[in-house]
Amino acid sequence: MTGNILGEKFLIVSFGESHGKGTGVVIDGCPAGLPITEEEIQKELDLRRPGTSPITTMRSEADRVDILSGIHDGHTTGAPICMMVYNKDVDSKPYDLIKDTPRPGHADFTAGVKYGGFNDPRGGGRFSARITAGFVMSGAIAKKLLKTCLDVEVLAYTLEIGGLRAEIESYDQAREFRYSNEVRCPVSSVAEEMRKKILKVRKEGDSLGGIVEGVALNLPVGIGEPVFGSLDSELSKALFSIPAVKGVEFGSGFGAARKTGSTNNDPFILKGNKIATSTNNSGGILGGLSSGMPLVVRISLKPTSSIAKKQRTINLAEMKETDLIVPGRHDPCVVPRAVPVVESVIAIVLADQCLRFGIIPTVVPRID
Amino acid sequence: MTGNILGEKFLIVSFGESHGKGTGVVIDGCPAGLPITEEEIQKELDLRRPGTSPITTMRSEADRVDILSGIHDGHTTGAPICMMVYNKDVDSKPYDLIKDTPRPGHADFTAGVKYGGFNDPRGGGRFSARITAGFVMSGAIAKKLLKTCLDVEVLAYTLEIGGLRAEIESYDQAREFRYSNEVRCPVSSVAEEMRKKILKVRKEGDSLGGIVEGVALNLPVGIGEPVFGSLDSELSKALFSIPAVKGVEFGSGFGAARKTGSTNNDPFILKGNKIATSTNNSGGILGGLSSGMPLVVRISLKPTSSIAKKQRTINLAEMKETDLIVPGRHDPCVVPRAVPVVESVIAIVLADQCLRFGIIPTVVPRID
Amino acid sequence: MTGNILGEKFLIVSFGESHGKGTGVVIDGCPAGLPITEEEIQKELDLRRPGTSPITTMRSEADRVDILSGIHDGHTTGAPICMMVYNKDVDSKPYDLIKDTPRPGHADFTAGVKYGGFNDPRGGGRFSARITAGFVMSGAIAKKLLKTCLDVEVLAYTLEIGGLRAEIESYDQAREFRYSNEVRCPVSSVAEEMRKKILKVRKEGDSLGGIVEGVALNLPVGIGEPVFGSLDSELSKALFSIPAVKGVEFGSGFGAARKTGSTNNDPFILKGNKIATSTNNSGGILGGLSSGMPLVVRISLKPTSSIAKKQRTINLAEMKETDLIVPGRHDPCVVPRAVPVVESVIAIVLADQCLRFGIIPTVVPRID
Amino acid sequence: MTGNILGEKFLIVSFGESHGKGTGVVIDGCPAGLPITEEEIQKELDLRRPGTSPITTMRSEADRVDILSGIHDGHTTGAPICMMVYNKDVDSKPYDLIKDTPRPGHADFTAGVKYGGFNDPRGGGRFSARITAGFVMSGAIAKKLLKTCLDVEVLAYTLEIGGLRAEIESYDQAREFRYSNEVRCPVSSVAEEMRKKILKVRKEGDSLGGIVEGVALNLPVGIGEPVFGSLDSELSKALFSIPAVKGVEFGSGFGAARKTGSTNNDPFILKGNKIATSTNNSGGILGGLSSGMPLVVRISLKPTSSIAKKQRTINLAEMKETDLIVPGRHDPCVVPRAVPVVESVIAIVLADQCLRFGIIPTVVPRID
Repeated sequence: MTGNILGEKFLIVSFGESHGKGTGVVIDGCPAGLPITEEEIQKELDLRRPGTSPITTMRSEADRVDILSGIHDGHTTGAPICMMVYNKDVDSKPYDLIKDTPRPGHADFTAGVKYGGFNDPRGGGRFSARITAGFVMSGAIAKKLLKTCLDVEVLAYTLEIGGLRAEIESYDQAREFRYSNEVRCPVSSVAEEMRKKILKVRKEGDSLGGIVEGVALNLPVGIGEPVFGSLDSELSKALFSIPAVKGVEFGSGFGAARKTGSTNNDPFILKGNKIATSTNNSGGILGGLSSGMPLVVRISLKPTSSIAKKQRTINLAEMKETDLIVPGRHDPCVVPRAVPVVESVIAIVLADQCLRFGIIPTVVPRID
Repeated sequence: MTGNILGEKFLIVSFGESHGKGTGVVIDGCPAGLPITEEEIQKELDLRRPGTSPITTMRSEADRVDILSGIHDGHTTGAPICMMVYNKDVDSKPYDLIKDTPRPGHADFTAGVKYGGFNDPRGGGRFSARITAGFVMSGAIAKKLLKTCLDVEVLAYTLEIGGLRAEIESYDQAREFRYSNEVRCPVSSVAEEMRKKILKVRKEGDSLGGIVEGVALNLPVGIGEPVFGSLDSELSKALFSIPAVKGVEFGSGFGAARKTGSTNNDPFILKGNKIATSTNNSGGILGGLSSGMPLVVRISLKPTSSIAKKQRTINLAEMKETDLIVPGRHDPCVVPRAVPVVESVIAIVLADQCLRFGIIPTVVPRID
Repeated sequence: MTGNILGEKFLIVSFGESHGKGTGVVIDGCPAGLPITEEEIQKELDLRRPGTSPITTMRSEADRVDILSGIHDGHTTGAPICMMVYNKDVDSKPYDLIKDTPRPGHADFTAGVKYGGFNDPRGGGRFSARITAGFVMSGAIAKKLLKTCLDVEVLAYTLEIGGLRAEIESYDQAREFRYSNEVRCPVSSVAEEMRKKILKVRKEGDSLGGIVEGVALNLPVGIGEPVFGSLDSELSKALFSIPAVKGVEFGSGFGAARKTGSTNNDPFILKGNKIATSTNNSGGILGGLSSGMPLVVRISLKPTSSIAKKQRTINLAEMKETDLIVPGRHDPCVVPRAVPVVESVIAIVLADQCLRFGIIPTVVPRID
Repeated sequence: MTGNILGEKFLIVSFGESHGKGTGVVIDGCPAGLPITEEEIQKELDLRRPGTSPITTMRSEADRVDILSGIHDGHTTGAPICMMVYNKDVDSKPYDLIKDTPRPGHADFTAGVKYGGFNDPRGGGRFSARITAGFVMSGAIAKKLLKTCLDVEVLAYTLEIGGLRAEIESYDQAREFRYSNEVRCPVSSVAEEMRKKILKVRKEGDSLGGIVEGVALNLPVGIGEPVFGSLDSELSKALFSIPAVKGVEFGSGFGAARKTGSTNNDPFILKGNKIATSTNNSGGILGGLSSGMPLVVRISLKPTSSIAKKQRTINLAEMKETDLIVPGRHDPCVVPRAVPVVESVIAIVLADQCLRFGIIPTVVPRID
């Protein structure tokens, strides 16, 4: 399989570059009969759109979805769905200046070697986070599918930025408040501190990282395959494809390494006549299969690699060390705009999983 | 694709159960002409063999490899390699007693739902860590392949157990000392503390978790595919298939979330005439592609779910809550025996990656 | 993907060689809860067993199935099913004599180049038709699954040998009489002529080819995916993996090239309240999807490449042309023993297809 | 995997409909550094363009390629290449009239069942042969890649139409003359007869089928994988995805069934210091691997299903039999326009195969 493909039954193909005609996605395998409008997709896209607040990049893109195939008469048809957003506010000049000096933290060096220098260097080309627009377009459809067929809901939100961590009280709180502020953190007091810290660090020419938490509610028991196709395996694979992700953990995650079996095991209990666990250290996954408890995953995002500060690098043409000031317009912290991307990626994986096991049918039942 | 398959060009298929005839693996796609002996595979298998020290399970298995196909005249032939170890010391009686009471932390409940109760329950059946013997058998061949064709070396070792963390000084230290003690930690003073803590917790009827670090040295630049097929994506997918893994991170990992761009970016430097970075927060991966620096990954392992302490669960036959004492023989801490498994899984993924891109040829050159 | 794997949800992995320990198969993805016995599998294996009549090879193998995993308490468990037959009557000496002189029509030359001479040459090694024992073992399970879950039936039979073609009157006739004679042709008068022709040609040191027809009855409408995953695409891919197959056609097949639209189109009619077609030139496939009519496929098998007559070839060691008498024991016509293999391969593909689209569930319902 | 994807390393994703915005393709995995212009792609597209002669459909489409990603500065970049042609001359009205009466020979009935009536019915929607424009766009790149890296050439031509068969004298003749006439048959005298027969049958409101032969010259020995990934398996899978194909055969094909081993086996000979065979009944494939001889494949195309004659079908709304006159504009014989499609599909499969085994590198060497 090639690298720009994710999934198997709800399969997405990503294409496009930062400074080319645009970026897009083909979804193959989406069930027929799902009602979906351009507006529903646009609404999600708007959540990751650049240039919307002082804490994001100043690149201004309308990011209007263009549906090229697969949707007819307001429903998916079962055919591949191709969607694109076009690039408008492109300024490629700065990249000419630095074409021989790979930016630290970026793929310039590794991609240059891999593609023999033929890769499109403008704005990071194929390695730009701009390609996640395609993740969000397909995520919009995946979320609608999960909700319509299974009443499954996926939520993501900012948990931590620059060391400031929010204590989430409930998933209801997360659902209600995560988009009530620019940093997409459900706890407004912490959100305000995060915002201030981002602005301060931006002023210093630096950047911040953070943690996004994603949750899936109402998943049936038994999704996933044991061993290599475990639900955590499939989710982590997809989540590591989001630029800047350096760690993925489920439930107690890295904390589990410091617990004992008696405190980490989740006792089974009855909730009415439903089997649940009293704690959720497993993050909703047991033996690689969904347990029916909320699926909980956290990802660590490194601070944006593009910073205004002077950095050391190599001039490849002369093969000697040199200073570099990275040009271009960038987010001082990728966490807020990553929130809808994480939500989309989780939804895409879950839609795919549910289709693999026949839990979502290949035709969405007509609802009257 | 089904769940028991990993990889694409060096592809492994896992089969077998804890208390059935045995567990095994088929490797498809291994290049022809690799010299390999039963002894080389056995040596690796012996590193994960149970019953070898007071800190492992008392189940005693010889775990002798039986090569069923694909190796002829001391070389791989290019045909699928099937290998098995047989189960001898099987005691399935305890599992009859608890068949209606799912063990907390185990897959009993989720697997029972998924397979309609037809799954083999004896010793966890297909969900037992015993299936990792197959990972190690195929890892032995993957490691030989990487070493022979590319001089790539994979090392794993215990970094942390029960909150005790070792400071690794160098990969040379790790290579030399990781198997010098029962816990597989290269720092012998910490190793001794870990061992004591495991024995203490075992006595209390409890268990411990920890962290294993894996390293790959000498990888060429550019391994991996951008986006969904990134090297971190592929490695994390494989590592989450190891039982008990709850988190995976590369380089600065979750720590990256608390750093700034200026401290997390790795400046490019010249080492002789080779391009390197002065730090390795990226863990050897930039834009999803290997950077030529050591690949560094850490996995969090939860404490063994099987503990001697009384736990709460549900009696499924009567649908009411009940107490449970988990029977059987178990490791008080899975970390030491996970070390060769992690090493194998990393090697399998890297061999697969190198074959996908033609970096390892389909016939190993004859060396005289 | 590697070459020894077929399918996606009912996935089989073939392994083993003609003169090694044996040949086998792993099935991954078989639903849990299918009742199956060793006897049911053995019965199918016996249909392709060598040495059973004067028109087959004299190699004598018991071909007793050994189930190594995945079946417990008389049911499939949802875990991978590994099955093997062992090689007993092996005589590898003749192959030493001809190791430098590739046999015409065989893979000796191409495999030698591909694997750098490391491939197992004994009895054709991995390229021997002996590996189809694994197809039949997995076919036995696929056929049971199709019958149990969907009442789908797969039938194959000899249609033509050495230019002698049978006129099949009905699928009932085919079901009842195809195994009533050694050549597996439902029309006994033609069967007898075929048998005589095979014996005559054997005496001349030569071999015959023929055509096998396969039929699947009672398939639901809509199996298959348009474009590259069409039902004919998937079936042909699998059928061309059977050694000696040189052509695959559906319905009117190559005859369609000589018809007009008005005679080749199948008019739709009502049969009771079921939609059918009055003819079946489509072979049960329209637009790559099953139509509900019988699926009809024919494969052309070339005459056995191993013949007793003297042939021209190259002595590779000396790089000059030479004469060759092929040693070993061989079928004078592979058609009769190919019948159960074709039936199995069709069943495997259909089981896979039905699982891909959720038409066969992942747990077989318990029947009381 | 989903149905609209072909290949693994040179992977194509097809999308689009007959009467939607257009049809397109994404190629993932194309090596970086291949020089390619819009004109080169357009030239191939023009060969399958409709409305160019009296023997093709009157639908008039410019079919201008729009390259949306993956090509920069005149070279492929290693990123996914998305290309589209737009639909202009669309007349969907006729399809409204027949939406309840499935056209014989078409996918209307099977697709309607599969997609619950949500499939786009206009012009056959996703099932229209119009989607093969995407095959040709990607085929143009595959052919350039094979030629540039390996000097491999792929040729297809009309062998037979309406029972009139051409005797091809040499591949040089085929290369030179296949596009010298409207029917794409290298033998001009037969071509003229074919043309007349097509016009005659069109006048009768009927249609014709035929046979296309495809050849690949200069392939290295050993391409393909034994068993399920054999070169014939992969090619047949791809070729059956072309609408109207009912049979695929290699070398002596169905004729092999009527030969003896001594006449069908190809003796090995020396041609200079190269190993060849004196005949080519194998069609260039031995044991599923390329033999170095010309690869020869033939496909049978059924007569166009859309004919002007009255046909019987079912009115699905009333569930009773009825007469149908199929509206719309159609080719009286699909064979001529299938020629560049067959050539493209063969090239796509071969490019993919060569990339899978590292025979084509991931960066095309710069030629100065």
